[in-house]
Amino acid sequence: MVERVSNAHGDVEEVANVHEVVNTGPIRVPGGLRIKRAELAEKLLGSWPEIRRSARELAAKPEIQRIEGQSMDEHRARVFGQLKLLVEDGQVLRAFPKRLGGDEDAGGNIAGFEELVLADPSLQIKSGVQWGLFGAAVLHLGTQKHHDAFLPGIMSLEVPGAFAMTEIGHGSDVASIATTATYDAATQEFVINTPFKGAWKEFLGNAAKDGIAAVVFAQLITQGVNHGVHAFYVPIRDEQGQFLPGIGGEDDGLKGGLNGIDNGRLHFTDVRIPRDNLLNRYGDVAPDGTYSSPIASPGRRFFTMLGTLVQGRVSLDGAATTASALGLTIAIRYADQRRQFTAGSDTDEEVLLDYQRHQRRLLPRLAQTYAQTFAHDKLLRQFDEVFSGRADTDDDRQDLETLAAALKPLSTWHALDTLQECREACGGAGFMNANRFTSLRADLDVYVTFEGDNNVLLQLVAKRLLSDYSGKFRKADAGALARYVVGQAADRAYHGSGLRTLAQTLGDFGSTARSVGQLRETRVQRELLTDRVESMIAEIGQKLRHASKLSKADAAALFNSQQNALIEAARAHGELLQWEAFTEGLESIVDADTRRVITWLRDLFGLSLLERHLEWYLINGRLSGQRAQAVTAYIDRLVARLRPYAVELVDAFGFAPEHVRAPIATDGERQRQEEARAYYAALRESGEAPVDEKVLRDREKAAKKRQIA
Amino acid sequence: MVERVSNAHGDVEEVANVHEVVNTGPIRVPGGLRIKRAELAEKLLGSWPEIRRSARELAAKPEIQRIEGQSMDEHRARVFGQLKLLVEDGQVLRAFPKRLGGDEDAGGNIAGFEELVLADPSLQIKSGVQWGLFGAAVLHLGTQKHHDAFLPGIMSLEVPGAFAMTEIGHGSDVASIATTATYDAATQEFVINTPFKGAWKEFLGNAAKDGIAAVVFAQLITQGVNHGVHAFYVPIRDEQGQFLPGIGGEDDGLKGGLNGIDNGRLHFTDVRIPRDNLLNRYGDVAPDGTYSSPIASPGRRFFTMLGTLVQGRVSLDGAATTASALGLTIAIRYADQRRQFTAGSDTDEEVLLDYQRHQRRLLPRLAQTYAQTFAHDKLLRQFDEVFSGRADTDDDRQDLETLAAALKPLSTWHALDTLQECREACGGAGFMNANRFTSLRADLDVYVTFEGDNNVLLQLVAKRLLSDYSGKFRKADAGALARYVVGQAADRAYHGSGLRTLAQTLGDFGSTARSVGQLRETRVQRELLTDRVESMIAEIGQKLRHASKLSKADAAALFNSQQNALIEAARAHGELLQWEAFTEGLESIVDADTRRVITWLRDLFGLSLLERHLEWYLINGRLSGQRAQAVTAYIDRLVARLRPYAVELVDAFGFAPEHVRAPIATDGERQRQEEARAYYAALRESGEAPVDEKVLRDREKAAKKRQIA
Repeated sequence: MVERVSNAHGDVEEVANVHEVVNTGPIRVPGGLRIKRAELAEKLLGSWPEIRRSARELAAKPEIQRIEGQSMDEHRARVFGQLKLLVEDGQVLRAFPKRLGGDEDAGGNIAGFEELVLADPSLQIKSGVQWGLFGAAVLHLGTQKHHDAFLPGIMSLEVPGAFAMTEIGHGSDVASIATTATYDAATQEFVINTPFKGAWKEFLGNAAKDGIAAVVFAQLITQGVNHGVHAFYVPIRDEQGQFLPGIGGEDDGLKGGLNGIDNGRLHFTDVRIPRDNLLNRYGDVAPDGTYSSPIASPGRRFFTMLGTLVQGRVSLDGAATTASALGLTIAIRYADQRRQFTAGSDTDEEVLLDYQRHQRRLLPRLAQTYAQTFAHDKLLRQFDEVFSGRADTDDDRQDLETLAAALKPLSTWHALDTLQECREACGGAGFMNANRFTSLRADLDVYVTFEGDNNVLLQLVAKRLLSDYSGKFRKADAGALARYVVGQAADRAYHGSGLRTLAQTLGDFGSTARSVGQLRETRVQRELLTDRVESMIAEIGQKLRHASKLSKADAAALFNSQQNALIEAARAHGELLQWEAFTEGLESIVDADTRRVITWLRDLFGLSLLERHLEWYLINGRLSGQRAQAVTAYIDRLVARLRPYAVELVDAFGFAPEHVRAPIATDGERQRQEEARAYYAALRESGEAPVDEKVLRDREKAAKKRQIA
Repeated sequence: MVERVSNAHGDVEEVANVHEVVNTGPIRVPGGLRIKRAELAEKLLGSWPEIRRSARELAAKPEIQRIEGQSMDEHRARVFGQLKLLVEDGQVLRAFPKRLGGDEDAGGNIAGFEELVLADPSLQIKSGVQWGLFGAAVLHLGTQKHHDAFLPGIMSLEVPGAFAMTEIGHGSDVASIATTATYDAATQEFVINTPFKGAWKEFLGNAAKDGIAAVVFAQLITQGVNHGVHAFYVPIRDEQGQFLPGIGGEDDGLKGGLNGIDNGRLHFTDVRIPRDNLLNRYGDVAPDGTYSSPIASPGRRFFTMLGTLVQGRVSLDGAATTASALGLTIAIRYADQRRQFTAGSDTDEEVLLDYQRHQRRLLPRLAQTYAQTFAHDKLLRQFDEVFSGRADTDDDRQDLETLAAALKPLSTWHALDTLQECREACGGAGFMNANRFTSLRADLDVYVTFEGDNNVLLQLVAKRLLSDYSGKFRKADAGALARYVVGQAADRAYHGSGLRTLAQTLGDFGSTARSVGQLRETRVQRELLTDRVESMIAEIGQKLRHASKLSKADAAALFNSQQNALIEAARAHGELLQWEAFTEGLESIVDADTRRVITWLRDLFGLSLLERHLEWYLINGRLSGQRAQAVTAYIDRLVARLRPYAVELVDAFGFAPEHVRAPIATDGERQRQEEARAYYAALRESGEAPVDEKVLRDREKAAKKRQIA
């Protein structure tokens, strides 16, 4: 047993030399601290705890939940029926205007929406299509006349609708969509057209079956001028569910997941809609065809319009984090019961979670899920600031979009990675549909490419970082830039040539413990993570600094040569944001024992980030080889130290049995083991237990030896 | 255009300084070499080309293929029907004795079996259950009386059967299964019993519905002695499909994939079978109950019995590689057509595969798939040597098992990773079930945990490596070990303290090109990869060297502290084996241009392995920071250089349209783009094309300037 001394980190074992420790077996830290579950659980619920609790109550109802194994048609029908239950419940309407029955609560609306993933991701995304995309487009891109005319039907589900933006030919590049809305002043109508197959609207929820209207994004053309992408409210089906004249479509059919949603394609041939159906908040056409907009620059106008739809990305960040938390809840509870192989004893088999590899597989992912939980709450608060109007300057909106674009890729990829690791960690049982992983993973798969492809989003983030970087020098004289460049070069020589590495090595030599001591300091982790982002961006910035002097083709080629590095820099930025949020969240925990355990978890997250990018820290002279080894050694110790708290840490997510619903997350495995143990005990007692052949052989050998002797 | 000079690697650009190159944009290497598709394709087909071609012909038949979207019951019924078609076709019976209608062709049988994954993984695995597990157990664990009595019914599918080894409580740890077969000399019968719930047989294909017999693994008890796990032939259902007396079971129901297979549970209560139903090749019971075995040691006997079932692992390595190749064929063909965003031009959008990130995502995975293809062929030849009896000493069998245990984890994980990356690289289209990725991935998911959990298999490999390592010293005197340890310590000081790093850095300084020049050498890649495996094992070996002096519990704890490192060492070993096989395969390519391109692909594989583990090479002083950067820079150049050949490289896998079956892998995307281009051209020609608002604004600004001037 290790003596507990209360210092800043609460772990006195640091003083020991790690190499010593590793060579004499792992430290077995008893789980002697008491986590205050209630405080921690409340912290994890974030800034809208009541709303989340209320949404979870809803998600706990069987009639809201998925029935696994339904056919696509059955699943679609069930989910559409569930949407009606959501309307009755009313929570999903929080974002809409009070005068129409909403709450005008943008942040709370997303908080509640995210929890629906616990019931069925198809239900979540289908309701997202109806109220978060179709409805939100009318709300944010339309004006009061549209709200009055269209929102009541949308809110009540009388008018299910599609959000018709993506086309077969253009997904990520929305500005290049080819559908046209040409104004006809003679009839005061817009004429919607799909000029070719590539311009068919594609992957639209509600399009294959349920939608009777759509918000259609199209190039607005009036008086011979194309004013770029605008949104139009377009009825698409009649009361019998038949397409209106000029409209056609196809069912996308079976998908890799989310089969409760009727995704499909739509196309338009000379479809006429009244002038008033242009959602005209950011651009309008007068009866005579004159175009006007409150935003003069077409580019800024386009990005402002798209920016109103950021909530999709925000909510996926939250939902993906919730799904990861659920997966870990199941896998860690099972790993805490399941036994396989005897190792340290002749009779008792080891619990899976006592194996180092198993800890290594699950606990760093738990740490990241915690980080994401805190980071997401920060994102959601920022979203609420902007959409409540409390802080919605252009800069605020851009910051929000950059933050969402940085976090959503990391958390959605993390969900797939985590659910897969959980499924594998549970072996064959993890592959059974009833245990949730495979089904959740299949449904969440598309989260990484829809609402902004992850790789494209990270490039947006990188470009923002680059422009911030170059902004430092925009107003400076040429001398400042030159000095900066020289400084960078010196930095490179110093870091890169191994000089600093060597000095650090000599200082550290023989004492991994001292290295560890530094690595667990908040300040050191922050410096290392921040330094990496800044250095990566600066390095790319320098490589791209002459781009503006090149031909367009050469500049593009140069940019392309840095594409991979740019995306990695953006990822590093997102990781830093997650770490910062985790650190902030941690500091607000009152209970000392709880804060100590969560500090270890934050350290595990920070150190895992360092380990993931260790080669960068080594190449760039930020860590010596000695210290880099300490990173891995310390992670090994942190996972062992956190292991006794693992179940409490997932329990703090607060999922009820109705949310978990996985047989392996119950006590069944433990009960089976007790039954087996009782059987063997009784057998031994009966005196009828067969002797093991091996034991017999050993006895015979011993007897022979005695005979010879 | 780059001048082509014929040197060992055929790439003269190496002479240039990489930093220069990166700073002035990427090199655009024209695809000037001609790949000899026929030679390459033949090489990829491996040692049983005719059999693979013939199996692919079978897999190209619609009636053998999966119908997506079927319910579980429909899918099960279809697959069972397809098994009958396989019997009619006869290919799946190649491994069985000639006198019973087989070919006694172990290797060819697996080669053909693997190709069935192209039709439907459920069909593949269901046929694997029937003939590769149930049938193979009778073949390899039984004797002639069993062959004569049982094989004809198994081969004809008259007797569908289950392979009842795994239990709810014990999967990876087969030795600990709890089902008993107790000999009753009075009736000359074995009595099969499931003593408790944890001993129920679990996850068995054919158990839920179709199976009428099973090979049941149970602890053989006779005359009060437990002789360990043996296999028994047990009828389980009558002609009406009802369980026989004493037998019960459950349907596992829906799974994450492979839903064409009826997995289920079985339990036994006092089920009596004749003494002759013991599959008695490695252990027999005389009528009076006396046990005998040709293998005296119970441990060796157990591993020999399990070893006969290695073909499952072997075949999964091949099937996973084939599935990866198929995924890459689809994704790379699409990436070669699909365009998104204009970058280097005002009108033409970029083809996805011209983006660096896209190359980075797909081409290293293609390189690994090639490596696996060559490595698998080697494995299969070794398997054939052993199972044909040409080389089946204990050592041969152990080598085969170690090789299979090293390769299967890497290739099955690679399949999941590759299919996922392919799906994401195709965006929303990749998520459509019709485009194959999601369905294939779901089916292959369980390949990473069945037939040996990947993490467990890698530990077996690591233990073998460790025992080879300690074997070096077993016969040496204590002095030899001491000298070795001292040598290691010196090596550590030399590598680890940065001394060697520094020397290398100074030598390399300013010339990444020279570093690259070395890294592309076969010898250098081999040395770096080999050194890593050996050093990792030696380091762990040293840490564990006192384990035998510790108590069992302490030794287990010590071992556990190295578990993660052990698994990583085994992975490094598997990677080296893949690299070696790729290198051997490459050297046998006759055509010079083809060999050159494939050499780049091998270099990409080798360098990708170095990049993946760069931190190890840096920490241990094997690569300087400068050289480590060259690894990444060279990979960037290799992917660009290979890009023009990417489609040819996947076409060489030789899949017919009937195997590919993905709409996005056809020419549809290109045709849609041509339609769009023609539309815009005609519009421009008509003079009725709307003017872009941006263009208009630019014109207005220019006009205003002129007015002011």
